Amino acid sequence: MKQALIIGASGQIGKMATTLLLEAKQHVKALVRDKNKLSEITNPGLSITEQDLEGAFSDAFAGCDQVIFVAGSGGDTGADKTLLIDLWAAAKAVQYAKAHQVKHFIMISSIGADDPEAVSGDMKPYIVAKHLADKHLIDSGVPYTIIRPGRLTDDTASLKISTVRPEDENKLKISRENVANVLLHVVTKAEPNNQIFEIFDGEQPIETALS
Amino acid sequence: MKQALIIGASGQIGKMATTLLLEAKQHVKALVRDKNKLSEITNPGLSITEQDLEGAFSDAFAGCDQVIFVAGSGGDTGADKTLLIDLWAAAKAVQYAKAHQVKHFIMISSIGADDPEAVSGDMKPYIVAKHLADKHLIDSGVPYTIIRPGRLTDDTASLKISTVRPEDENKLKISRENVANVLLHVVTKAEPNNQIFEIFDGEQPIETALS
Repeated sequence: MKQALIIGASGQIGKMATTLLLEAKQHVKALVRDKNKLSEITNPGLSITEQDLEGAFSDAFAGCDQVIFVAGSGGDTGADKTLLIDLWAAAKAVQYAKAHQVKHFIMISSIGADDPEAVSGDMKPYIVAKHLADKHLIDSGVPYTIIRPGRLTDDTASLKISTVRPEDENKLKISRENVANVLLHVVTKAEPNNQIFEIFDGEQPIETALS
Repeated sequence: MKQALIIGASGQIGKMATTLLLEAKQHVKALVRDKNKLSEITNPGLSITEQDLEGAFSDAFAGCDQVIFVAGSGGDTGADKTLLIDLWAAAKAVQYAKAHQVKHFIMISSIGADDPEAVSGDMKPYIVAKHLADKHLIDSGVPYTIIRPGRLTDDTASLKISTVRPEDENKLKISRENVANVLLHVVTKAEPNNQIFEIFDGEQPIETALS
């Protein structure tokens, strides 16, 4: 059975998605800098590769037919890490995926990444990085799904989402658990057809909202 | 007569290149954030457009057949500006150049931009930004010349350069005045043929070294 490679598996969404995928009997290869961060997950379907995204990490792609890029600094680390991880590590991952003929690259992007010029202030470098990482994937020829969540919250999974941007700015949000469940759906049930989704907490079951 | 647009004309190399081009009777449009920084240049061939590279600046491209991108933060400003100017403003400039059917885009890049993975430490975000900006230009279809100078010095122009990387690391350098003279040559005498040059202080006249 082919594996799904999760890049950034020890982050909050990465860890949730890893757990959900393993529960769904999906084999998962987790790419992390420190394997101790995944020590609470004990499942024979999980293999762990320790690598620093600031170096080369192409070996991890062998035997993986799907890749999920959920690594990232959020908007809170320095812009140096935004450039080196959110953009450059993503661009390298796309290049490795292409070389390994990966069948589906799933990118966790961000709302706003479609139009960085509409953003100002401290978030702009992060949004530019996500925009350019998405563009690399789109231009690469690797089949993709790009997911652009609203502002992330720690609410529990409602399992109900919307792909339509709400007019009320307070509703431009989605729980990390909902994002992880979207990843579960996309990895296990969706065909890659080069789509870009914005996702928010909403009213529709995930499968309905993404169909 | 068509104009050459210089983006970043108030920087050290930008100002030198602007002066040299005007002396060679080339019409120049200078794109700067603050026109007072060019107040010492009084030449009827110069027009100045004030715009912030962090916003939109496509209007400046009208009527320009060549574009020189020499804006940049060097390696010394914060990585946020590296991302927003060295990479994002460059990517926008390439997009505007394509929309305006510019005939020749001349990018001042940096030695090392061919292979960011060979670089580590504080310079890496800058080198990644330059690499990705160059890649945008290369992939754009806009005819280009990419110039990658060694470490910049304030020596006076020797007008002698080399395009071969010297083995002695101490010789991986070039004066800003030599870089400006290379720009003069490329703008006024070279045909755009999608070449990438590394340049260093050397022993050959500029025209010979670049031919």
